[in-house]
Amino acid sequence: MPFPAPLTGVVPPVCTPLTPEREVDVDSLVRLVDHLVDAGVHGLFVLGSSSEAAYLTDRQRRLVVETVAGHLGGRLPVLAGAIDMTTPRVLDHVAAVTAAGADAVVVTAPFYARPHPAETARHFRRVAERSPVPVLAYDIPACVHTKLGADLVLGLAADGVLAGLKDSSGDQAGFRAVVTGARTRPDITGFSVLTGSELLVDTSLAMGADGAVPGLSNVDPAAYVRLYDLCRAGDRDRARAEQERLCALFGMVRAGEAGGRMSGGSSAIGAFKAALHLRGVIDCPVTAEPQTPLSADETELVGKYLAAAGLL
Amino acid sequence: MPFPAPLTGVVPPVCTPLTPEREVDVDSLVRLVDHLVDAGVHGLFVLGSSSEAAYLTDRQRRLVVETVAGHLGGRLPVLAGAIDMTTPRVLDHVAAVTAAGADAVVVTAPFYARPHPAETARHFRRVAERSPVPVLAYDIPACVHTKLGADLVLGLAADGVLAGLKDSSGDQAGFRAVVTGARTRPDITGFSVLTGSELLVDTSLAMGADGAVPGLSNVDPAAYVRLYDLCRAGDRDRARAEQERLCALFGMVRAGEAGGRMSGGSSAIGAFKAALHLRGVIDCPVTAEPQTPLSADETELVGKYLAAAGLL
Amino acid sequence: MPFPAPLTGVVPPVCTPLTPEREVDVDSLVRLVDHLVDAGVHGLFVLGSSSEAAYLTDRQRRLVVETVAGHLGGRLPVLAGAIDMTTPRVLDHVAAVTAAGADAVVVTAPFYARPHPAETARHFRRVAERSPVPVLAYDIPACVHTKLGADLVLGLAADGVLAGLKDSSGDQAGFRAVVTGARTRPDITGFSVLTGSELLVDTSLAMGADGAVPGLSNVDPAAYVRLYDLCRAGDRDRARAEQERLCALFGMVRAGEAGGRMSGGSSAIGAFKAALHLRGVIDCPVTAEPQTPLSADETELVGKYLAAAGLL
Amino acid sequence: MPFPAPLTGVVPPVCTPLTPEREVDVDSLVRLVDHLVDAGVHGLFVLGSSSEAAYLTDRQRRLVVETVAGHLGGRLPVLAGAIDMTTPRVLDHVAAVTAAGADAVVVTAPFYARPHPAETARHFRRVAERSPVPVLAYDIPACVHTKLGADLVLGLAADGVLAGLKDSSGDQAGFRAVVTGARTRPDITGFSVLTGSELLVDTSLAMGADGAVPGLSNVDPAAYVRLYDLCRAGDRDRARAEQERLCALFGMVRAGEAGGRMSGGSSAIGAFKAALHLRGVIDCPVTAEPQTPLSADETELVGKYLAAAGLL
Repeated sequence: MPFPAPLTGVVPPVCTPLTPEREVDVDSLVRLVDHLVDAGVHGLFVLGSSSEAAYLTDRQRRLVVETVAGHLGGRLPVLAGAIDMTTPRVLDHVAAVTAAGADAVVVTAPFYARPHPAETARHFRRVAERSPVPVLAYDIPACVHTKLGADLVLGLAADGVLAGLKDSSGDQAGFRAVVTGARTRPDITGFSVLTGSELLVDTSLAMGADGAVPGLSNVDPAAYVRLYDLCRAGDRDRARAEQERLCALFGMVRAGEAGGRMSGGSSAIGAFKAALHLRGVIDCPVTAEPQTPLSADETELVGKYLAAAGLL
Repeated sequence: MPFPAPLTGVVPPVCTPLTPEREVDVDSLVRLVDHLVDAGVHGLFVLGSSSEAAYLTDRQRRLVVETVAGHLGGRLPVLAGAIDMTTPRVLDHVAAVTAAGADAVVVTAPFYARPHPAETARHFRRVAERSPVPVLAYDIPACVHTKLGADLVLGLAADGVLAGLKDSSGDQAGFRAVVTGARTRPDITGFSVLTGSELLVDTSLAMGADGAVPGLSNVDPAAYVRLYDLCRAGDRDRARAEQERLCALFGMVRAGEAGGRMSGGSSAIGAFKAALHLRGVIDCPVTAEPQTPLSADETELVGKYLAAAGLL
Repeated sequence: MPFPAPLTGVVPPVCTPLTPEREVDVDSLVRLVDHLVDAGVHGLFVLGSSSEAAYLTDRQRRLVVETVAGHLGGRLPVLAGAIDMTTPRVLDHVAAVTAAGADAVVVTAPFYARPHPAETARHFRRVAERSPVPVLAYDIPACVHTKLGADLVLGLAADGVLAGLKDSSGDQAGFRAVVTGARTRPDITGFSVLTGSELLVDTSLAMGADGAVPGLSNVDPAAYVRLYDLCRAGDRDRARAEQERLCALFGMVRAGEAGGRMSGGSSAIGAFKAALHLRGVIDCPVTAEPQTPLSADETELVGKYLAAAGLL
Repeated sequence: MPFPAPLTGVVPPVCTPLTPEREVDVDSLVRLVDHLVDAGVHGLFVLGSSSEAAYLTDRQRRLVVETVAGHLGGRLPVLAGAIDMTTPRVLDHVAAVTAAGADAVVVTAPFYARPHPAETARHFRRVAERSPVPVLAYDIPACVHTKLGADLVLGLAADGVLAGLKDSSGDQAGFRAVVTGARTRPDITGFSVLTGSELLVDTSLAMGADGAVPGLSNVDPAAYVRLYDLCRAGDRDRARAEQERLCALFGMVRAGEAGGRMSGGSSAIGAFKAALHLRGVIDCPVTAEPQTPLSADETELVGKYLAAAGLL
């Protein structure tokens, strides 16, 4: 579908179900998409960090976009990550995901390379010049090790280079500067500011953000849609209660951390997939190599979080 | 050629000459290979950081390996980087570069993903299981944001997973632990320990390292071969003098930093390429997008370093 | 005055006016205290980061506490930083500032030393055992290079070790975990959760925080008191407008950054002091050694921010 | 004694023995000094990181300097750390330690505050202007979180601000730049370049360094003196063997790390003190608060390292 300007609402970063052999499980992926669409989400983001994009081969990435875009058939906008190290490699992904049906692409700062901010800006300009669809910036310093400054983002927004920002930086003060700038600067229109935080959706929307891209919305999409609607309606007390319920549920992401055998990222993705498996949405909770899988005990702990939230 | 165990000597990380349109300049690449081979180097490392591997598309990477391996025709071992974020993507590169003629692959820890050390070890094991050629670890925390511990490297060496280490960490104490372990542990044989530092080749070899992979050896390969030979001969005073001459020459990597428009990496690669252009080895000094190019003044400064070293 | 449990409201981290010779300017300090008290603030925090505590000698620190506590005469609670590297040194400061009249002490994790979390917990326990007044934790990873985890803080709160938290970490998700835990855990009572952010007071209070310690409240204390009252009254739209006005004013902290001659901290403190000087509250805007002072142009820029906010 | 220019040789950073009540154990400190002097060391550095300076109160710091300087009576130069956050506080320590008998002071970049390099330079200039004795820079980014650049150090050396550098940065390439600059620049004379690394003394001296300040020389000072003499004599093979023996012994610093209860620093200091206690030099191995002490098993492991090195 034509990409809305600005994009608003809940846009889950869709997990990528895998088979035990670690191929894309197309049937489970379709079921996951239905699970999200039925809950009322406003768009889908594939090939992001929660999608294990960093772990998927080019062939697998293409299959994911084709599957999701094909199944949706234009009912919702599909954003696709084009996650790679530098401009030339990102451009190859942009070509591939748009050929496969993506309505917009989501692009980080260069990584591995350690860019100067002027080079990061140049990167987004070059990508946008060659992209057939709108480009959103993905601010995720934990992965790429540079932070997108508010001035850089707003400047690129004003120049029509960027159509939006997905902020997974954890820096709410910087996020607010973008939100306020996008809302008040006369030279910026139709720019979508989305938080990637599971835990700060209510306060982000209260600042004026357009929407959210929370990994946990894979597990409980209906709750994030409710939360979004409560915020839009100005019912901030019930919004806070819903947000706090989701904060408690989010505790599942640490299920695998106590064992000292995996990273926080592996634990979080493992927990989301275990939850989707326990809820019957996907067939297999396996994560991509070389991530350590959750143990049986750790999976049981995820189940307890689901039960406490009334989801099991 | 069969990969020697251990690999020793000077193994330049070969720059990737580009055309003004930023395609691989095959003719210049062949001339650069001849320039290095004629100087007496002991192997070539393509698709490393100095090769701008992070900036090359898959197609360009393949062309580089085919060109270099084809031109060498087995005269020297060709190591090829398989630089990507995680195991599945690295395995695709391993398949591609070995099909194109690489004699060994060089692999970093996972990045973008932030792996636990147990996951990094699992990564190297999975890659080695599937690689048809020996695997060397590439320790480059400035790019991948984790450090390979000496115990991890030595354990993987003892298990036959790794055939060597290219250490670009700057941590000489950790490097020494690997060098000493590789030399003294009875369960480790044929393991090659190579420093990636331009500035510490003499002291690294004095510790017992097997060789060096210095980016600056693109510019002055004969000097690094001389330095290696002096070290092997135990002539440490002349070795130090040669090393200090190269330290002075290395100052060129900061040519572009003063302007505040580019990263240190862009400045260094830009300087190497400018020097190769000024010395008549390659046709065009351009670097890949989105790196800021050196200005005319900055290029002139590179020329002064060359002149001071008697290279122009 | 007896320290309230929990402490609520606006608690400015009081700047330390200096003479041109860089001695504590007692007269200006008293005027600054009056300026804050007259605006209706709820407590004062001396010897924090905004107070340049890191730059003050022990003699100067004592004079600051004596001056402020003496002038207040118990009208408001006085919190005093006991900023030093480790437990024994912090305990000396605790003794000094409580002898000088502080009603509570504010203590960071150990720094210079790089503590394990178990050692940080032990640090707070040892300090609390020996402190005659309540102890608040000061989470400021930008200065001390470790982050206080929510579980650690809440555990120490439940054990009665800590009476509150001043959070200058910028991590609103972690802050929320402490706020929610302090509000809902039955084993925690009277624990005060304060944000150190100038820019997120409205959203922090909306989460359930007790108050704020914003450096910018030195410059415009009345606005922060208004903001606090609007939040308490549930008038979130007017609160947001007031907050956004303060966000714009806060731009002054970058007045000195463009010149490339000073740190962000020096620019921020320099701007606050320049603003207090321009508003006629303090006699001299000088900052402590070795901070680079603002230039005349940079000071003029601060004046423009004040004028735009209607403060000049 | 008059501070030699340049200072050369082995200069142990003297541990600070404590009583079980964590007061300075003066008798043990005197025995430790004798143990070092008898081994032939060339100077003593008190109140450095290995001395737990960050954990000592001002009163304790003074007692340490008085004890060591008084006991030495001018037989060897005494360097004293003046470790604190900023210029005014450092100047108070400079006054105290020189009054107590120090022949030179050792000063880090500002910390807690996050200085701009121009402010760090200003800091050293202000300290040197007011110090009655020579000032050495202490480059220890692991503790102070900024790195002293080679150009900054050499510039201050040329201006007579700094009399030397203790480099605990681990950055041998940067260290080499200072070593080479100090040796070759005509505007620098009498500048002492000392490595703080236990593991790289042979290669540092081979580069042209003047000496070493290794924490492990508390435990085995005679070996470091032997190593220094072998290096000076040009007997590099025996030097390497001695260095590698010390590298193996240095493994003791990790004795406490496996338990997950203490920092690397606490483990290292705990191991040095346990070794000195086991060797009969000091009465009590206790470390300062809030460091976790070594367990009995961990202490036994330290003993095994000593036994393997023939020291027990």
